Amino acid sequence: MNNRRKIVVIGASNVGSAVANKIADFQLATEVVLIDLNEDKAWGEAKDSSHATSCIYSTNIKFHLGDYEDCKDANIIVITAGPSIRPGETPDRLKLAGTNAKIMSSVMGEIVKRTKEAMIIMITNPLDVATYVVSTQFDYPRNLILGTGTMLETYRFRRILADKYQVDPKNINGYVLGEHGNAAFVAWSTTGCAGFPIDDLDEYFHRTEKLSHEAVEQELVQVAYDVINKKGFTNTGIAMAACRFIKSVLYDEHTILPCSAVLEGEYGIKDVALSIPRMVCADGIMRSFEVHLTDDELEKMHKAAQSVRSALDGAGIK
Amino acid sequence: MNNRRKIVVIGASNVGSAVANKIADFQLATEVVLIDLNEDKAWGEAKDSSHATSCIYSTNIKFHLGDYEDCKDANIIVITAGPSIRPGETPDRLKLAGTNAKIMSSVMGEIVKRTKEAMIIMITNPLDVATYVVSTQFDYPRNLILGTGTMLETYRFRRILADKYQVDPKNINGYVLGEHGNAAFVAWSTTGCAGFPIDDLDEYFHRTEKLSHEAVEQELVQVAYDVINKKGFTNTGIAMAACRFIKSVLYDEHTILPCSAVLEGEYGIKDVALSIPRMVCADGIMRSFEVHLTDDELEKMHKAAQSVRSALDGAGIK
Amino acid sequence: MNNRRKIVVIGASNVGSAVANKIADFQLATEVVLIDLNEDKAWGEAKDSSHATSCIYSTNIKFHLGDYEDCKDANIIVITAGPSIRPGETPDRLKLAGTNAKIMSSVMGEIVKRTKEAMIIMITNPLDVATYVVSTQFDYPRNLILGTGTMLETYRFRRILADKYQVDPKNINGYVLGEHGNAAFVAWSTTGCAGFPIDDLDEYFHRTEKLSHEAVEQELVQVAYDVINKKGFTNTGIAMAACRFIKSVLYDEHTILPCSAVLEGEYGIKDVALSIPRMVCADGIMRSFEVHLTDDELEKMHKAAQSVRSALDGAGIK
Amino acid sequence: MNNRRKIVVIGASNVGSAVANKIADFQLATEVVLIDLNEDKAWGEAKDSSHATSCIYSTNIKFHLGDYEDCKDANIIVITAGPSIRPGETPDRLKLAGTNAKIMSSVMGEIVKRTKEAMIIMITNPLDVATYVVSTQFDYPRNLILGTGTMLETYRFRRILADKYQVDPKNINGYVLGEHGNAAFVAWSTTGCAGFPIDDLDEYFHRTEKLSHEAVEQELVQVAYDVINKKGFTNTGIAMAACRFIKSVLYDEHTILPCSAVLEGEYGIKDVALSIPRMVCADGIMRSFEVHLTDDELEKMHKAAQSVRSALDGAGIK
Repeated sequence: MNNRRKIVVIGASNVGSAVANKIADFQLATEVVLIDLNEDKAWGEAKDSSHATSCIYSTNIKFHLGDYEDCKDANIIVITAGPSIRPGETPDRLKLAGTNAKIMSSVMGEIVKRTKEAMIIMITNPLDVATYVVSTQFDYPRNLILGTGTMLETYRFRRILADKYQVDPKNINGYVLGEHGNAAFVAWSTTGCAGFPIDDLDEYFHRTEKLSHEAVEQELVQVAYDVINKKGFTNTGIAMAACRFIKSVLYDEHTILPCSAVLEGEYGIKDVALSIPRMVCADGIMRSFEVHLTDDELEKMHKAAQSVRSALDGAGIK
Repeated sequence: MNNRRKIVVIGASNVGSAVANKIADFQLATEVVLIDLNEDKAWGEAKDSSHATSCIYSTNIKFHLGDYEDCKDANIIVITAGPSIRPGETPDRLKLAGTNAKIMSSVMGEIVKRTKEAMIIMITNPLDVATYVVSTQFDYPRNLILGTGTMLETYRFRRILADKYQVDPKNINGYVLGEHGNAAFVAWSTTGCAGFPIDDLDEYFHRTEKLSHEAVEQELVQVAYDVINKKGFTNTGIAMAACRFIKSVLYDEHTILPCSAVLEGEYGIKDVALSIPRMVCADGIMRSFEVHLTDDELEKMHKAAQSVRSALDGAGIK
Repeated sequence: MNNRRKIVVIGASNVGSAVANKIADFQLATEVVLIDLNEDKAWGEAKDSSHATSCIYSTNIKFHLGDYEDCKDANIIVITAGPSIRPGETPDRLKLAGTNAKIMSSVMGEIVKRTKEAMIIMITNPLDVATYVVSTQFDYPRNLILGTGTMLETYRFRRILADKYQVDPKNINGYVLGEHGNAAFVAWSTTGCAGFPIDDLDEYFHRTEKLSHEAVEQELVQVAYDVINKKGFTNTGIAMAACRFIKSVLYDEHTILPCSAVLEGEYGIKDVALSIPRMVCADGIMRSFEVHLTDDELEKMHKAAQSVRSALDGAGIK
Repeated sequence: MNNRRKIVVIGASNVGSAVANKIADFQLATEVVLIDLNEDKAWGEAKDSSHATSCIYSTNIKFHLGDYEDCKDANIIVITAGPSIRPGETPDRLKLAGTNAKIMSSVMGEIVKRTKEAMIIMITNPLDVATYVVSTQFDYPRNLILGTGTMLETYRFRRILADKYQVDPKNINGYVLGEHGNAAFVAWSTTGCAGFPIDDLDEYFHRTEKLSHEAVEQELVQVAYDVINKKGFTNTGIAMAACRFIKSVLYDEHTILPCSAVLEGEYGIKDVALSIPRMVCADGIMRSFEVHLTDDELEKMHKAAQSVRSALDGAGIK
């Protein structure tokens, strides 16, 4: 039996290094390989992380600089490469579409030469464009391509609600769906807290002011911009999201989580990747759920599809 | 600052030792004290566990045999003492009421002499009787007394549903409420899976046969008896439940979980302890939720109250 | 890539169930299978453990009753089956030799029909006899057979020293070697504390009374008997030892740990299994170390060899 | 009982944020507070980290921007503030002495107004100067001030050896001692691998080329510069070191680890802070060990003392 687990992280900047280090902290791999055009940066990150593995908290993970040959026997490949949004820029992930789509094609071209068995976790933005490109332009098993998508927005949503009612965010469920970025939307019809309808919380917590969906949605959009502008980038939340998917794969959890993949007719939508709830197990995405949405939510889902399709069209991607 | 965390486990039999060992595995304490009338047993369990702490997986927990003096500076006291149901016996936890109520009075009498600050986690059966006795017969802060109650039934319920649809049980929410034991009931109105109504799962999973609530409820009752009869006792699930509460306390999580405490008029019920959803944090039970239930569920809640009250009456407890 | 990890535990009594539950607590598998002649017991243990996996602390491990067919795709097989020493019995593990050797032959016969790729972790006593039997009577890769051996005595030794100086046992190193049981011996020449010679501790800790090797050795023997006699059995420490090896395998750690395997001429010894330091990685035992010992230690190693050989002879095993 | 644990991290740049996130990953606190002159940066880091806490892997940690008032009830305060060495700069931490000593005085001045009970973990460079300043210029309990010191060099040393022999670094023990930075030295007389003398490894691993102490020492110095120059900074290894100390404190581990504090006559040295092995528990540094060193090592220890003293003198610190 092969007892080893190898994870390749492509891109060793803020996001890639955060993902690699969380993989180590959560003991998800026996070997972590960093690949970056800037080999010095990847070497330095790998080396610094390798020093942490001397601590008795850590398993003896082999951290090292690598190249695409390392994909051959990888269990999981996390793609974080590509230019990202910077503070002060118009915060529209879709503007990166053209540039990053080309980078993704190049990265994926290298991968498919070496493996068609690794689970691919896409983080590069614009996420749904990148996910669509690697899914449709290469002959790679679709179930093995997963974009982190609105998992991050979903975490933010849960934290906002948790802070509002001073409750454990693990008690909050429900999803932000659609496009990772501007056209993400809270699917309020899927939300709840500890088995209660979200809208009953005001009563249960004796709040006189009613929860404003609009205020929550606005805070959700605002906090994304604020983190980027004040911190300079965002990496911790997204790294946790990536690790959540990795754990579902490596522990064969069959967990239902919101993530991005090419739609196959759900909600009548094709030809874009979007986030909807999907079941993730050792074989990747096992099942997607066309869950019942309200008319308003359906409209937002279609708007998200148009947003992503328009970015794809703008970048000349069918 | 006092950086130490001390947990006293009263009763070192199957349940007590399982709780103590899970506390160690999850690194929830700096010191674990075992107390048992059978001091040899408590000594042996503590010693065996102490050997495991030499492993680099473990923090340097101080495991040892103790006595009630150890309660003085305990953060948490877990009560598992008392005779339990044995295989072949009529599986009615309430029959133990008289005997165990007396034992609980004695145990609690020793505790209140030493502390009124420790969180008390009650596991001894009949759980709701025991929780009621220690809550009402002593001048101890009510928020610091928590019976594990239907947390175990809730875990079982989630596993049953998870197995049926091959989904991660962490995706299942909703509660079994009422009495820990025969009068527990599934509060179907609180249940869901990954943000979907439970009853939509058949559609989403393309099942032709509709989920039978009755079949699930029957399996829930049956599996409790089967584990006791086939294994001889039950300890792993309940130990995990206890640790879940401990973690919510020690990490100040504000988690909403089903657990038992004396009702203060919720659903018009007083004078019994029952499990309903409650929020648990560093200060113990912070809030209880009189969640909306269906008429059928309300009836079952009242039946549970009568069942516990009748056991209390039978044992001469007001 | 196969992302799953399956562990089969043969024997669902005190030791087997403790191993299975620690595997879950430390998230070492995606599937845990229990096999026991007493299928009810194995079913009950698996079911109770499965209820614990509903907790958010746990990955969605598939716990279930199984049979030898489950060995086919197992990563690891832990053997705990066989009668054990009971309180009050003459505490000589070798007396169990004849009986358990036959059981081991039967168990191993079933295994080799299904796999020659799984790592086998032997726990059944007399440990060195059992390890020898499965290693020599079957055509199974030697590197994949590991007896937990004196890892448990080593943990006990470290805890005794740790308690004496009030120091973290993770700071203590050095080994108990030889036979798991009566002919185990402390290899004092390998011991140390935090990089200091053990015998310097008295000075560093300002102790006036010199550390007595004899007293430590006596306590080491005594505590083994005391745990069995007072607790009724021993399982927590040995379960941790088993998990330590499992982690070294599944995380490809290349850790040097004392464990039992058939000697291949180390110290001039063949034809028995004994514990010496060995390196454990994803491919099992990768290397054994014939470390320098003092004359006194060498004599004890040879006595251990004679003890195991004599038990093998007594049971008619070449 | 106060069940909460609050950790304040001063400085939210690369190191501070890495420490904060590892604290979360290892579940070491109920509340993590970030303080930085750049409040936006601290806010952004705290917010990003708070989003990660929505994941079921995480406890419900309260991450937030804070100010010195938060020190009042902190269990632990980690100081990472101050300018750091940048790529291309002469890599002499002591050059930062004057500037950072003033910053430390100011930071510590704020702390002592609010608490004298928190454990202070110093990371700011030049580490031994900073540790000396906060220890001697304020009336704060000495046992509660700990500089991470040569723990990082020690991790690097263990990783270098581990890579050389392909062995788990958790098997390597022994220390790098002295000054954190240029005058650190490997105390070879304290080193070992799995209970063997380091110098026996060549024989045990059948290496023909003898281990060169000089080559190891050179690699140890080189890798520190390389990480800074290639990655741009170093944070992962040092964050792990900080967490190792935090865990020893919060779990009352009594672990012996190399760390910096003001020497009280050990090796005839006073008036500087240096790293030697010390025991860390819930009450901070409980004991320091003037371990036996070779003449060569003693000379290096004194050179380290001179190096730190000279930097202190240069900055006008008695």
